[in-house]
Amino acid sequence: MEFMMKPIGILHSPFTEKEGTPIQPTRSQAVGKVEVYPEYADGLQDLEGFSHIILLYAFHCSSGYSLQVKPFLDDQLRGLFATRHPCRPNPIGLSIVRLLARHENILDIEGVDMLDGTPLLDIKPYVPEFDVRNNVKTGWYAKRSKE
Amino acid sequence: MEFMMKPIGILHSPFTEKEGTPIQPTRSQAVGKVEVYPEYADGLQDLEGFSHIILLYAFHCSSGYSLQVKPFLDDQLRGLFATRHPCRPNPIGLSIVRLLARHENILDIEGVDMLDGTPLLDIKPYVPEFDVRNNVKTGWYAKRSKE
Repeated sequence: MEFMMKPIGILHSPFTEKEGTPIQPTRSQAVGKVEVYPEYADGLQDLEGFSHIILLYAFHCSSGYSLQVKPFLDDQLRGLFATRHPCRPNPIGLSIVRLLARHENILDIEGVDMLDGTPLLDIKPYVPEFDVRNNVKTGWYAKRSKE
Repeated sequence: MEFMMKPIGILHSPFTEKEGTPIQPTRSQAVGKVEVYPEYADGLQDLEGFSHIILLYAFHCSSGYSLQVKPFLDDQLRGLFATRHPCRPNPIGLSIVRLLARHENILDIEGVDMLDGTPLLDIKPYVPEFDVRNNVKTGWYAKRSKE
């Protein structure tokens, strides 16, 4: 069983190389644009009421993946699924960014941590009732070796 | 450009029909299991240190999608991408569930809102520093007609 994913748009970012690209939106103040292809623009109605959106996109990882990786913020090998490392069996990236404005099919966003030209797969509204958890334990991350 | 996604596991849930399935993990106390296929089990190391995990999975939507939908919690048509409706151009589902325990390649989870047999695409650790936002506006959801 396989699922074919087709980009619904493209992400425009100031970052063109992995080196120097922020590792998470919460560590980025960079602004960028989400260009949703015109045939999907009608699906963006009402999105401008939300201050934050979840972007799902395809990582540019042509080089496969490893099940044990060294996270950016640690110096020990960890299980891939216990990290946010970009090279994964299904290389789907997830970023929660601030939505500054919508102009038709173009979204102005802040907190960009993707490479320029990243293919967009989905947009979902960020809803604290669904997406925020309290009393969270974060394993190795809480004891990470880097900041 | 297209991306082929191949399930890395399967979700076992008490819910076998859409009717009666909770719409979000925060509205579910149901427990279930994530069965990660054995060839990916090494990637689960260290995951047990996290209390919450993000599951990305494929929605069972054989019936296509509409760019305007009525959300479960509202009675007006909204832009698809301003909702969490399951039928989307790339039908990727996102649920943040509590991780109760890991037994090799099997994860016991709480907060199940997926149908039994849902194909799993990815697992990411839930990290508040990356995934929690404050001062959030939620547009139509804040004024929704249903609870």
